[in-house]
Amino acid sequence: MSENGIGIVETRSVTFAESPGELVLRSGRTLGPVTLAYETYGELNRDRSNAVLLCHALSGDAHAAGFHEGDKDPGWWDAMIGPGKAFDTDEYFIICSNVIGGCKGSTGPSSLNPATGKPYALDFPVITIGDMVNAQRFLIDHLGIDRLLSVVGGSMGGMQALQWASAYPERLRSAIPIATALKHSPQQIAFDEVVRQSIMADPAWRKGNYYGHGQPKKGLAVARMVGHITFMSDQSMEDKFSRRLKNGIYSYTLADDFEVEGYLRYRGDSFVKRFDANSYLYITKAMDYFDLSGDRFLADRTGIDTRFLVISFQSDWLYPSHQSLEIVKALKKRQIAATYCELKSTWGHDAFLVEVEEETRLIRNFLGNLASSNNLSHSLVCNGGRVESGLWNV
Amino acid sequence: MSENGIGIVETRSVTFAESPGELVLRSGRTLGPVTLAYETYGELNRDRSNAVLLCHALSGDAHAAGFHEGDKDPGWWDAMIGPGKAFDTDEYFIICSNVIGGCKGSTGPSSLNPATGKPYALDFPVITIGDMVNAQRFLIDHLGIDRLLSVVGGSMGGMQALQWASAYPERLRSAIPIATALKHSPQQIAFDEVVRQSIMADPAWRKGNYYGHGQPKKGLAVARMVGHITFMSDQSMEDKFSRRLKNGIYSYTLADDFEVEGYLRYRGDSFVKRFDANSYLYITKAMDYFDLSGDRFLADRTGIDTRFLVISFQSDWLYPSHQSLEIVKALKKRQIAATYCELKSTWGHDAFLVEVEEETRLIRNFLGNLASSNNLSHSLVCNGGRVESGLWNV
Repeated sequence: MSENGIGIVETRSVTFAESPGELVLRSGRTLGPVTLAYETYGELNRDRSNAVLLCHALSGDAHAAGFHEGDKDPGWWDAMIGPGKAFDTDEYFIICSNVIGGCKGSTGPSSLNPATGKPYALDFPVITIGDMVNAQRFLIDHLGIDRLLSVVGGSMGGMQALQWASAYPERLRSAIPIATALKHSPQQIAFDEVVRQSIMADPAWRKGNYYGHGQPKKGLAVARMVGHITFMSDQSMEDKFSRRLKNGIYSYTLADDFEVEGYLRYRGDSFVKRFDANSYLYITKAMDYFDLSGDRFLADRTGIDTRFLVISFQSDWLYPSHQSLEIVKALKKRQIAATYCELKSTWGHDAFLVEVEEETRLIRNFLGNLASSNNLSHSLVCNGGRVESGLWNV
Repeated sequence: MSENGIGIVETRSVTFAESPGELVLRSGRTLGPVTLAYETYGELNRDRSNAVLLCHALSGDAHAAGFHEGDKDPGWWDAMIGPGKAFDTDEYFIICSNVIGGCKGSTGPSSLNPATGKPYALDFPVITIGDMVNAQRFLIDHLGIDRLLSVVGGSMGGMQALQWASAYPERLRSAIPIATALKHSPQQIAFDEVVRQSIMADPAWRKGNYYGHGQPKKGLAVARMVGHITFMSDQSMEDKFSRRLKNGIYSYTLADDFEVEGYLRYRGDSFVKRFDANSYLYITKAMDYFDLSGDRFLADRTGIDTRFLVISFQSDWLYPSHQSLEIVKALKKRQIAATYCELKSTWGHDAFLVEVEEETRLIRNFLGNLASSNNLSHSLVCNGGRVESGLWNV
């Protein structure tokens, strides 16, 4: 076990086979039995009041921290989880579960369809962020937790945090949506549609029935390349690659001359080895359907005491700050406590995974204040955030 | 002939078969014979001093204005070309030629390779923006024009304008680079690489030898969808589509529910009918290779009297204004006359085709001042541009 880390962990899973294990989906269809893969770090306290649910992004999984036996790399938010870290495992019980529709242990299109004994493929029903959250609620019930201290996530994880707050306000004391939105914009939908079309354009996709034949490698790789461009910023690409050439000179061929091209190809190819193409289709669709704008977000809820910490990043053009401001405005309108911070960063959308120091300071304070008092502290200071909207305490 | 239009036009072409008709390329390879397709509008005056060369963007062609016999739609910049328009055909002789590497009448990968009698396909040599401009110089020589009044273009057309000014400063009195850059950034290269990978991922591409078999439809369509997202802005997509649904309700299938998805699919599919996939590969590569940064741009040229009008658009994130400012800074450093205007627009990169009124005002004044005087007039006013850099007259 490393000094600041939580050492070796294992992904567990639970299957909700009996009623209400069958999930009634937003589409009207049902899904069952539903299996959820999850990990936990730290200990649930006696009054079960210290549980924090982390929700992952598009291609994430339940493995947020620590090391799986034999792995070199830790979980996806390891820098934020452990003793003394943002999500301090000496104080909090951290839960992370893989979403339904995914391919990392939870029920998704690559799972066996009990009706046929074969993978669901496109027989898997279209799901929504709401359906993902309803499945997570089963898990929280299963763990015997009545009220979560917080639900936290970046990007699609932030949508889940907003959905939790909207659907089950009595089940959480706070939410921390990071680099996210109340709804996908047409530009976000457009990028997702390109991703889907790229996968479906590959004949190896076989209308979804590629299991046993291998992934639609080329289409999925191109899809992921598009994703990676949107996760970075103009500036972070300049910082990381500029116009550096792989071999120092132009080849005067159609080969990948620039380092940035080689990087994208590498990221595309590695993604094919770790993520199911159909899961990518279903999860992007769920994100596109997500829409808590207008009256859909807490409009009919009075006396909500959920508190919000909303974080965005200046160079994030995929989930730009104006989308986080829309969340804050909706909360203000409903007189719900919200702190908003737009952090300086050149990392683009990736910032939520990278800007550990600033996020740690904000989140440790926010959770600490929640745990110690019923009054929202005004001690949060948004260093580095833009002045005109650095801090909202309403 | 319509009131303000130039009526029916035809694309002509000229082939430079004899020496120096063989073009020595930047790569060291040669290309020949070289055919250039071009159109002209208006009349060359007696002292041959009123010629303006328009350079087209990535998927453009020589047909900039007027109507081809039987066509419903005019050329790509028709709103800017004609009597009383920005490029006033009562005053100027306008030339527009299709670039080499293209597929609209100039020599490109779909042309017959004289060595084999079959289409070049990937035997076509990799070309640069410099090579395109060298081919255009043949045409300008052929037309008997010693000095162009101006070379003008948006996007890749602007690169050609910059290249003309850099390679042949004595051959032009002015240049108007619009929504362009001195070099492609890694983000721009990255989008181009996705485009190329998408085409090459399609088995119907057949390593470039698809002629006679049909285009790599799916790969080319996805490539163009990516392009269209980058040509628009977050705001223009919101204005045009918002989250409107094609059929009013979510289908809960993987179909295209949103209008923006249908639009992208439509634009992708129509592109396949009008543009050669290999040309897309070669032309994007030429753009990625383009680099007039540092000493490459006019550094060794003293006493240059070329004048520049540099235009960018606020919502253009593909060729953001900071890239136009780099052009202006390079010109200032070399004490070359430059006027810069960043125009307000929500149209993204498409703005250079759409913001006709503002461009007309700027360009008419700029060309008028050039024609009437040797002194750069300070009468240009950049309405709508941002204050801090609205106008530079140096």
